Amino acid sequence: MSRWEPDAQGRFRAAAMELFLERGYGETTVADIAQRAGLTARTFFRHFADKREVLFHGADRLRQTMIGALHGAPANATPFEAVTAALDASSEFFRDNREFARRRSQVIAANADLHERELIKLAKLSEALAEGLRLRGVTESDARLAAEAGIAVFRVAFGHWVAVGEQRTFGEILHDSLGRLRALTSNR
Amino acid sequence: MSRWEPDAQGRFRAAAMELFLERGYGETTVADIAQRAGLTARTFFRHFADKREVLFHGADRLRQTMIGALHGAPANATPFEAVTAALDASSEFFRDNREFARRRSQVIAANADLHERELIKLAKLSEALAEGLRLRGVTESDARLAAEAGIAVFRVAFGHWVAVGEQRTFGEILHDSLGRLRALTSNR
Repeated sequence: MSRWEPDAQGRFRAAAMELFLERGYGETTVADIAQRAGLTARTFFRHFADKREVLFHGADRLRQTMIGALHGAPANATPFEAVTAALDASSEFFRDNREFARRRSQVIAANADLHERELIKLAKLSEALAEGLRLRGVTESDARLAAEAGIAVFRVAFGHWVAVGEQRTFGEILHDSLGRLRALTSNR
Repeated sequence: MSRWEPDAQGRFRAAAMELFLERGYGETTVADIAQRAGLTARTFFRHFADKREVLFHGADRLRQTMIGALHGAPANATPFEAVTAALDASSEFFRDNREFARRRSQVIAANADLHERELIKLAKLSEALAEGLRLRGVTESDARLAAEAGIAVFRVAFGHWVAVGEQRTFGEILHDSLGRLRALTSNR
């Protein structure tokens, strides 16, 4: 980087989110975002490939965080306990970002292309969890089922967490959802 | 339709699948498909909007079949029993199409765009199941969890069913996968 800008990335994120909510995602350009942030488009492209990346920038780091926790689970953990360790790590990851996550969810819900991108992100996360489980010696079938079930819990819990008025932490909601999944799938 | 062609749709499907596997999806045109089928491109477009629709043509009917079964489940069925009824209906739906499904899975696995489209199709199926459960009086959270868990089972079972050498029926594999999900999510 040729010039140092204090927290340029954070300023671009905040500016982009304001504009996406004010005007709509499709109606916001990188030039608009840079202007709102008081920075240049050139600086924007040092941090993000395009405006969509502002919304999906954290996906790789989230996946690494979750996969790291999966690998770090005790050797005798069941597949679903290992997935739960990954989910717990995601709750640490999101701890301080609830307001950003709320706004981001609103932007994504309003745009079909972004919604598809979000689905693909979660599918990749599921595939990465399944791969991590296979490396722990879990069978192909159990790895995929445990990973998909874990992502199902993640999605549902995340939806609650960003809902207006929800007070519980992401970790609390995750554990409630895990308990509900167990209750739902058990024989009555 | 101005001219009647015996099983034009089936001929287009068979011709398209042959070409997708021989040349690749990206390298196959509608003109190629029509030529192989011995029909015209004009007739093709009476049946399909584009070549991609050859692969995703059954999605609406599959969803209707599954949602119909969900609604038809006994009033006292648990949410997951209702989802299981929908899954059972899907196994009827696929009964006679294993070879087509196998080839289709190969084509989709070889193309990132088609893979994304498949993910979106399954996400819509999950949303439809969740909506059906809400109409049965299931809470928002349980509806989404049960639907997502059901789709997880569906995906894993489908992957087995189309695998080379797999002999079990889709229904048998579905029930094995449901049992595995239950075992995975239960406390040990």
